Amino acid sequence: MSRFLTVIAVTDAVAVAEKIAPAPKMETVPVDQCAGRILAQDITADTDIPGFDRSVVDGYAVRSSDTTGASGSSPALLQCVGRVMMGGRDSTLAIGNTECIYIPTGGFLPAGADAAVMVEYTEKAGDTILIKKPASHGENILLKDEDFRKGDTVFFKGRKITPQDAGVLAACGCAAVPVAQKPVVGIISTGNELVPASVVPEPGQVRDANGPMLAAWLAEYGCIPRRYGIIRDDRESFEMMIAKAVPECDLVLLSGGSSKDDRDMTAAVIAAKGEILVHGIALAPGKPTIIGKIDGKPVFGLPGHPASAFVVLIAIVRPLLDRMLGQKRPLLRSIPAILGVNIPSQRGREEYVRVVVDQGVATPLFGKSGLLNTLVKSDGLICIPAGYEGLEKGSRVEVILW
Amino acid sequence: MSRFLTVIAVTDAVAVAEKIAPAPKMETVPVDQCAGRILAQDITADTDIPGFDRSVVDGYAVRSSDTTGASGSSPALLQCVGRVMMGGRDSTLAIGNTECIYIPTGGFLPAGADAAVMVEYTEKAGDTILIKKPASHGENILLKDEDFRKGDTVFFKGRKITPQDAGVLAACGCAAVPVAQKPVVGIISTGNELVPASVVPEPGQVRDANGPMLAAWLAEYGCIPRRYGIIRDDRESFEMMIAKAVPECDLVLLSGGSSKDDRDMTAAVIAAKGEILVHGIALAPGKPTIIGKIDGKPVFGLPGHPASAFVVLIAIVRPLLDRMLGQKRPLLRSIPAILGVNIPSQRGREEYVRVVVDQGVATPLFGKSGLLNTLVKSDGLICIPAGYEGLEKGSRVEVILW
Repeated sequence: MSRFLTVIAVTDAVAVAEKIAPAPKMETVPVDQCAGRILAQDITADTDIPGFDRSVVDGYAVRSSDTTGASGSSPALLQCVGRVMMGGRDSTLAIGNTECIYIPTGGFLPAGADAAVMVEYTEKAGDTILIKKPASHGENILLKDEDFRKGDTVFFKGRKITPQDAGVLAACGCAAVPVAQKPVVGIISTGNELVPASVVPEPGQVRDANGPMLAAWLAEYGCIPRRYGIIRDDRESFEMMIAKAVPECDLVLLSGGSSKDDRDMTAAVIAAKGEILVHGIALAPGKPTIIGKIDGKPVFGLPGHPASAFVVLIAIVRPLLDRMLGQKRPLLRSIPAILGVNIPSQRGREEYVRVVVDQGVATPLFGKSGLLNTLVKSDGLICIPAGYEGLEKGSRVEVILW
Repeated sequence: MSRFLTVIAVTDAVAVAEKIAPAPKMETVPVDQCAGRILAQDITADTDIPGFDRSVVDGYAVRSSDTTGASGSSPALLQCVGRVMMGGRDSTLAIGNTECIYIPTGGFLPAGADAAVMVEYTEKAGDTILIKKPASHGENILLKDEDFRKGDTVFFKGRKITPQDAGVLAACGCAAVPVAQKPVVGIISTGNELVPASVVPEPGQVRDANGPMLAAWLAEYGCIPRRYGIIRDDRESFEMMIAKAVPECDLVLLSGGSSKDDRDMTAAVIAAKGEILVHGIALAPGKPTIIGKIDGKPVFGLPGHPASAFVVLIAIVRPLLDRMLGQKRPLLRSIPAILGVNIPSQRGREEYVRVVVDQGVATPLFGKSGLLNTLVKSDGLICIPAGYEGLEKGSRVEVILW
């Protein structure tokens, strides 16, 4: 194979990745456990919410017209004719002119009433209630269907469910929530120099940082990571492990192989067992990335440098996962900032720069992509698009937060 | 009890909550599963990282002085005397004057070499390598301990572990990561009007939205939520369920009870079984909050309105959880914005306003705190401090994102 890669643009690589993404599969989870998952179906309200006019205060249900002009010195005098109990509707409860009924917060507004007066603005004298403040029509009332109306589409599929959404789903009767299944993502670390975290490295060896980093990121992103340990850079080990991982996973990531020999091995094995779709992306760091397919499943060869692997994860693998999850509007956590210094870039490739953000100013943290410490000292990434020769100090940038 | 609560300031309520927080307990988890957890001990690097000088490119290990002035038209001619293999140190490998050795990315820099030249800038003619570009001292080399030095404190306890941190922890030999145990948080929903999500509400009934919302939020925040279902507003049910939940949990949240009767019941039961420390906070929404203690464990009475319960969760319960988790610098996801309109507020209480953020402009989404839809339509909260009569249009605000 050539020593020079034929690189393609990031947008093209993303399009390839999205195209080979397996379709989302659905499952249901209890509403208590749905937060962070991706909704797999549109959800409609099965009833009006609330289902009846309710008081939002503790006080008296009144006819607002009976309270016109009421004040502390000249209260309206109303006859209390009952008490609303929580949790039901007493259809005999109703008020006529100059009558009122005690109502707790959340209680069913009795017939004839159109407002509620807070108990703090009332005084009780036997069955007579002194109302010291006028109530306007609808005051302190939550109207039937004011929150959601029966049949309304409350959420559209593809939404990442928040804790508040879980509350709304419960209110809509969605006790079992249809969500996208978590994709199972295999991680195979490769490299003769790699040892696991539990081993003290000998001279020439390093511990595998990418495996745990990828697993942790994938778990946070809503996948089920499955580690296949560390394999040596020989063809037989490669083929055996891929043959094991592909049927067990929805997507397989080969991590490591930063040297050309290793990359060639990864490419050769993917080519032999399936096909290579992309080999080289106009992306820095992250150029020597491989996108392939084996038995219809996406298989990626990620660069071995931790920073490079991480950028490829964010820029290329994430859109594919969004497709696998059916996620419509990925929540990219980003903040605007002003660039603190000039950053030169190479036209023709998309460049991701690690930055520290302080008081709204983004400062690049340059460092070899083999270093881990810039990944943990930085707050996120800024992207310099492919057509730019760089960004000037003072530019507005969007920082993709870790 | 009085119909008026004796409210205390938010800061005082938080101090009370933090004071009764149980101390963090430690456990260890595999490094692959540590992201999102709170580190329970300081972590030091057990070796230099990397443990040896490494090449960051595929190419030739050289003496930089041998390449001075090299160019395409006038290359330096070096004798290739070997090949670095990955994963070990061949102590016989060394270069002398005008010699070089092939080295893959990540390879152990052989004795005598002080730089690496990318293979792209070389040409091979038998054992002679043409070097077409000068290399400076240290070029393309990652120095031993350049990333982290043995004995360095790499992370301090109390940090929320990111996926990148997981990579660094692995590199530091931390295969089993000491983290804070997840607090078990009991959730008891109370209210005669409440039915679970699976039941179609009768007139006067509403579905319990707070229970699932609290459970979902707690799970995302790193706790183990434990639901105790919905109980009726009678003293016996209350006492039974509290007697069951307190020994099983580290913290118990009673949700619901928006009416004064319900709040009184909650307060009476907590007072009878333990003690009440706070009853009423200068917080809007969220005033009728109860903080108590039973058998040494914190027990909260949260307001029943969903928006109120959520604000209390963010403003009061979260600092307590941070204490229980030993979290030092909570990651408050917030973004700066400009306020789009004036917001009046009542001096003397801290007020949280739900806002929508669009293009850097925050616009309040006013709505009764009994509504769920404002919680899901808003992007987050802004806080108006207790001493303010409001905030003016154009003010810079910090939006706490959901």
